[in-house]
Amino acid sequence: MNQTLGEWLVTYGTQAFEIIGTLAFALSGLIEAARKKLDLVGMAIVTSLAAFGGGTLRDILLDRRPFFWVQNEIWIWAILIMCALALVFMRARHIELTERTMQLPDAFGLGIFAAGGTQIAITAGVSPIIAVVMGVITPVFGGVLRDVVVNEIPRAFNDHQPYAVIAFAGGWLVVGLNLLGWSSFWSVATGALVITALRLMAVAFGWRLPTWRV
Amino acid sequence: MNQTLGEWLVTYGTQAFEIIGTLAFALSGLIEAARKKLDLVGMAIVTSLAAFGGGTLRDILLDRRPFFWVQNEIWIWAILIMCALALVFMRARHIELTERTMQLPDAFGLGIFAAGGTQIAITAGVSPIIAVVMGVITPVFGGVLRDVVVNEIPRAFNDHQPYAVIAFAGGWLVVGLNLLGWSSFWSVATGALVITALRLMAVAFGWRLPTWRV
Amino acid sequence: MNQTLGEWLVTYGTQAFEIIGTLAFALSGLIEAARKKLDLVGMAIVTSLAAFGGGTLRDILLDRRPFFWVQNEIWIWAILIMCALALVFMRARHIELTERTMQLPDAFGLGIFAAGGTQIAITAGVSPIIAVVMGVITPVFGGVLRDVVVNEIPRAFNDHQPYAVIAFAGGWLVVGLNLLGWSSFWSVATGALVITALRLMAVAFGWRLPTWRV
Repeated sequence: MNQTLGEWLVTYGTQAFEIIGTLAFALSGLIEAARKKLDLVGMAIVTSLAAFGGGTLRDILLDRRPFFWVQNEIWIWAILIMCALALVFMRARHIELTERTMQLPDAFGLGIFAAGGTQIAITAGVSPIIAVVMGVITPVFGGVLRDVVVNEIPRAFNDHQPYAVIAFAGGWLVVGLNLLGWSSFWSVATGALVITALRLMAVAFGWRLPTWRV
Repeated sequence: MNQTLGEWLVTYGTQAFEIIGTLAFALSGLIEAARKKLDLVGMAIVTSLAAFGGGTLRDILLDRRPFFWVQNEIWIWAILIMCALALVFMRARHIELTERTMQLPDAFGLGIFAAGGTQIAITAGVSPIIAVVMGVITPVFGGVLRDVVVNEIPRAFNDHQPYAVIAFAGGWLVVGLNLLGWSSFWSVATGALVITALRLMAVAFGWRLPTWRV
Repeated sequence: MNQTLGEWLVTYGTQAFEIIGTLAFALSGLIEAARKKLDLVGMAIVTSLAAFGGGTLRDILLDRRPFFWVQNEIWIWAILIMCALALVFMRARHIELTERTMQLPDAFGLGIFAAGGTQIAITAGVSPIIAVVMGVITPVFGGVLRDVVVNEIPRAFNDHQPYAVIAFAGGWLVVGLNLLGWSSFWSVATGALVITALRLMAVAFGWRLPTWRV
């Protein structure tokens, strides 16, 4: 228990952000399912893919077990309850509202899962570029799987918004801080903060990726 | 060899149901491939995904090897032969007929693979809810993969039929019987029987999942 | 260092073909991404799936680590650079030209990855038919994943061209040469050569798979 007050605050802040981020990712799946008028089963599967798909793919690629959702099974209950509630209470007019509101919690999710995913890969002993790729896969592939199973081209592939690109840049920051001898704890906290801030700026200022000049 | 006659009968009955179920799942892939006018290669891949996709995904998630189709390679030959025969003999008018006829063997497949998948996960040491999720994935994700690769929203996501939901309920029965001290053998046999019966009733009486009221 | 000159030549020839094949597979992803007007992120992901997807799936199924792209991380850089260059320089009129030119390097990729994938599976100790299936998955599933994520029915499923079928036949050749006591080295070299030759003949003479008579 020789944590400083600062570390104590960041630990609980990190957990809070992780919960907020996972909820945001899950909600993005729920909304997609509602748009496509899926039934309870489709909702539960698409919501779960959005929430856990990226981390699960990362863990399969790194050969890590157990998965996040196996270790924190409370999340499966949470998602089942979310789906049941949505089926009863959600109406078409809620969808757009929810999407706009979600930009903030989604940015928390991007930061925490990109920085965290990079650190997990570093700890697993892979090289810097592979760690950064794993850090991008963690927050991005949940959305990719969510879109692929409902027959859409993944938004991450063609919305020209800096999202995965910010995760990529932030991953290098985490790698750099590790090389400078920072603890994994502070590397992730700093990386997550920077990624979230950049993402919020990208949304606020409408930053765009370059497009085809064809 | 201290099996009773009852266990002997159930063992061979189980194997028979497993074969019937796998054939039904494979046929669903074959029909989908025929609808989309895929060639021999597409047929073989879609049929294999429908037959083995769910169990293979479960085993990847549980980190189990070897896969069913690696251990029972006769099935790969069976599928290749089915595809070649279908290409020669199957006509458009067979498709609808086959689909209706398949409701019964498909219900056997649902029962045996949901109950069996749950038991395999329990034996692998996971918690009840995870075991039940694995039991749902086993019979359901073959069909999900089958539909995703041919560019359809998976039928399991939006047909409002109780299918995965019955597998979910039956999984809890298997978990409960295990907790009551029943052998894995009788837990699976009972679970499979109940799931198959519920599924057949769902088909016979046209049970529906609740829909969006939007 | 008791390699003969012949083996030395074939070793470097094999590496050259591997590079050419991977480039061809990556380019097929890049072109698909350009057609769909994906952004930089979508391009990088689709290109990577096309280049590494098949081998990665094979390795997950065989439980092999590390993956090709983890061990040869230079390829990740190569793909990122290819994507950036394409974004700047590629125009619509290049696409068709590139596709026709790619038939040759793609045939090299088919040969080297089908024969190599079969041998890797044999070395992993699986049975002949499973080894041949893994040899088909290696060159074919990159393209399948590439098409599925951008919402197309995989070309491999319905273009009626002998591609996976040639990989299948060539895989049996590799298995047979192994059984005859040939070294893995010469089995792969011979298998790759035969597969590439057959594929080029299929393209040149317009061989077709049988179609539905419905």
